Amino acid sequence: MQPLILALDFGGTKLSAAMTTAGSQHWLAHRRVFTPTDADGAFEYQTMLKMAHELIAETGKPAAIGVSFGGPVDATRGLVRLSHHVPGWENTPLAENLRAEFGVPVAIENDANVAALGEYRFGAGKNSDPLLYLTVSTGIGGGWILGGKIYGGADGMAGEIGHTVVNPGGVPCVCGKRGCVEAEASGTAIAHRARRMIDANVADGMEMLALLAVSAHEITAADVSRAAAQGNLLARQILTDSARFLGQGIGNAINLMNPKRVILGGGVTKAGDRWWNVVRYAARRYALPEIPVDIVPAALGDDAPLWGAVALAGGDA
Amino acid sequence: MQPLILALDFGGTKLSAAMTTAGSQHWLAHRRVFTPTDADGAFEYQTMLKMAHELIAETGKPAAIGVSFGGPVDATRGLVRLSHHVPGWENTPLAENLRAEFGVPVAIENDANVAALGEYRFGAGKNSDPLLYLTVSTGIGGGWILGGKIYGGADGMAGEIGHTVVNPGGVPCVCGKRGCVEAEASGTAIAHRARRMIDANVADGMEMLALLAVSAHEITAADVSRAAAQGNLLARQILTDSARFLGQGIGNAINLMNPKRVILGGGVTKAGDRWWNVVRYAARRYALPEIPVDIVPAALGDDAPLWGAVALAGGDA
Repeated sequence: MQPLILALDFGGTKLSAAMTTAGSQHWLAHRRVFTPTDADGAFEYQTMLKMAHELIAETGKPAAIGVSFGGPVDATRGLVRLSHHVPGWENTPLAENLRAEFGVPVAIENDANVAALGEYRFGAGKNSDPLLYLTVSTGIGGGWILGGKIYGGADGMAGEIGHTVVNPGGVPCVCGKRGCVEAEASGTAIAHRARRMIDANVADGMEMLALLAVSAHEITAADVSRAAAQGNLLARQILTDSARFLGQGIGNAINLMNPKRVILGGGVTKAGDRWWNVVRYAARRYALPEIPVDIVPAALGDDAPLWGAVALAGGDA
Repeated sequence: MQPLILALDFGGTKLSAAMTTAGSQHWLAHRRVFTPTDADGAFEYQTMLKMAHELIAETGKPAAIGVSFGGPVDATRGLVRLSHHVPGWENTPLAENLRAEFGVPVAIENDANVAALGEYRFGAGKNSDPLLYLTVSTGIGGGWILGGKIYGGADGMAGEIGHTVVNPGGVPCVCGKRGCVEAEASGTAIAHRARRMIDANVADGMEMLALLAVSAHEITAADVSRAAAQGNLLARQILTDSARFLGQGIGNAINLMNPKRVILGGGVTKAGDRWWNVVRYAARRYALPEIPVDIVPAALGDDAPLWGAVALAGGDA
């Protein structure tokens, strides 16, 4: 029998853990919990330990553990640098702690990198090397697979497509610049753009808000997608503007690196066909005509980091 | 005694050929000719053959030939796709032709990729992996070294940083878009920007032209650098605007790929300290604060493609 592999995913708002056997493409057992907004690193770690021990009680002891972490990671040293969402994770030797707890090898990596690996080994990126994976969610992260492996660059920081600038002088970004892909095209950016567009087009904006039965304060990217699906023109414009900037960023990345395939995951990719069409059009328009452009949806959904963690732990053989 | 290596460089406006011994860092013999503006592919090929035979008569028969070509190349098949400067190069089996002529192994590659390899093996990029090399000249080309080798991407087209967009709605580019790095920051772009700035600031523009003793029609990037070096404020503004866009493009590339070092070659890099300072400032400003930025001048100058061709032919051992 093949050895068991335990996969752990420390996300921004949720913790997931799952067990599989090496070489399998199905979970033996799977747990997911949403973390309270006041959670800290110690709470998340203890919650994850509890889930992991439950899975082990249910299925048996794993031969290796793979970990996806939602924040900058020093993969070589197994160190979490910090979480942008949850305090108390600064410079945590997460791999070492888990090794001490479970007595098996532990590999950890940044979530966008792990998700890229998951899609490459198990999802929409099979045989697609070089591969660029983007998660378009609250923020925008990216990961590269080059030569069959996660590519982190000189300092493990590669893949920050979310902070490449596509609109100089555009929307202010959390990073301190303006017009970053993340500031123009993330889920948060779509909600912000919606509020600006409502303020600038009050009558049309009120119509959209009435259709959605939400206030301008509450409106989310998912709301905008819902209104666009119902034919609301203002919502369609908001989505188009955001999608165009994302496509421009992807087109730039294609010119620079000529990936075989680009995979898009994250909640915003559920925004509908019009959003996808605009992303693809803009990427094709911005990439040089000689360079093929292939952009597809992620296949593994929320489980991409978990499957990547399995591959990271050597369970993809 | 080490075997001889022949390096050939088909540039946009000149042909170079040189002979060295494997493992050496000096030329045994070196030839360079400028091509007439009405040259075609057949003329360039015959001129290069003549130089190669002269070098062989002088130093002996090479064990291998490395070729740098100024245009898109299918390196695997040894095929020149086309030259953007010289007609008659379309789909030429250049490696096969040279193999038939000289009876030794021939490797060919695009000039920006070859120059990147030259700087990596012999120049400013030793031990700098991943490495991004840019030539900032009439146009702007780029090449990547990843894992010690030229990285071409899925179709050999990687490195087109010149056609990433840094200024949407900006200056029209030869590629059909607006605001590409090449359209904003190349030597040609600096000359165009100078003409626009002179037209928009006629009194200051006339002062700059008088200082240079050239007309607005004739002004080149080198003229602008010369005026800037003499303290002319309009010339300094022109250089600053161009350098800032180049730095923005480099900053984007750093966020995406986290190279260990970026090397800049080509005539525009002789524009002076102010140009370099602005490029470095903008790249540092656009890259995320966590990512180190290291931008240095090329060390091999016009010989970078020749030295890269030596490495390509296996003469760097």
